[in-house]
Amino acid sequence: MPTLNIREATPNDAGVILQFITELAIYEREPEAVLADETHIQSTLFCDSPKAFALICEQLSDDGSPSSAIGFAIYFFNYSTWLGKHGLYLEDLYVTPEARGLGAGKSLLKRLAQIALDNDCGRYEWNVLHWNTPAIEFYEACGAKPLSEWVGYRMDREAIEAFVSS
Amino acid sequence: MPTLNIREATPNDAGVILQFITELAIYEREPEAVLADETHIQSTLFCDSPKAFALICEQLSDDGSPSSAIGFAIYFFNYSTWLGKHGLYLEDLYVTPEARGLGAGKSLLKRLAQIALDNDCGRYEWNVLHWNTPAIEFYEACGAKPLSEWVGYRMDREAIEAFVSS
Repeated sequence: MPTLNIREATPNDAGVILQFITELAIYEREPEAVLADETHIQSTLFCDSPKAFALICEQLSDDGSPSSAIGFAIYFFNYSTWLGKHGLYLEDLYVTPEARGLGAGKSLLKRLAQIALDNDCGRYEWNVLHWNTPAIEFYEACGAKPLSEWVGYRMDREAIEAFVSS
Repeated sequence: MPTLNIREATPNDAGVILQFITELAIYEREPEAVLADETHIQSTLFCDSPKAFALICEQLSDDGSPSSAIGFAIYFFNYSTWLGKHGLYLEDLYVTPEARGLGAGKSLLKRLAQIALDNDCGRYEWNVLHWNTPAIEFYEACGAKPLSEWVGYRMDREAIEAFVSS
């Protein structure tokens, strides 16, 4: 098995992060949804006091050639009023198709679980598309439970502006 | 109609915030779910660099008697990789039963929408229980759309620890 390394992302990773965001959006059948560009990534993930964070999973070579990024995770800290504590929310988790089966996804998920413990988080949460059965089976095998009693609601920017003006 | 005022919460509000969290949990049929105490509220919402924030809605009196808190909202900033921008996530919104019908809930929701605009947020989001029809009708009337294609997954603290050790 190749050696995997998980590290915090740096500003030099903005390009590959945008590439992975785009590939994940295509997998999620929303190829037109990515409006972000590298400037957005730089200004939100690599600013002075970021509120969202990225990990990169890279595959190390045996022959001294440069390691290559094969996956990533984006996360932030949410909040539970019931616990009076923060939680860790996983926004995106992605591994490139050719690198699947090496354990990169599970390694990223587990590293984030450790970050949750290090930050005294009471919960570790994320959303998954209803039809994404392979992901759901993977998450449930890792011990996660569905929050089926809740449904998300959203105002997009246009709806926010209309509501404020109403 | 009585005059409503929405203001940022202060450390002196920790007690009423905990009371509202508990009343909301009872309404949500999870009366045992609140493990938070005032110390948790103080250390997370009123620390040096908070990552979650509270608004208080109070009803002003005409006769000079003290205003009373009739509702609250707790929020934090989430993140959208598709937009490369933060969003505003509403964790809790609650108005006391005796103060309903005065517009406090809509005023809180609208103030948060303005905070979302002030912070260049691309989205404004929250979760609602499937059976909470009055809330769903209210949110849809305000322009929010359901995210029915997604289901949340969660590891609680015990599951996180088991996963990290696995």
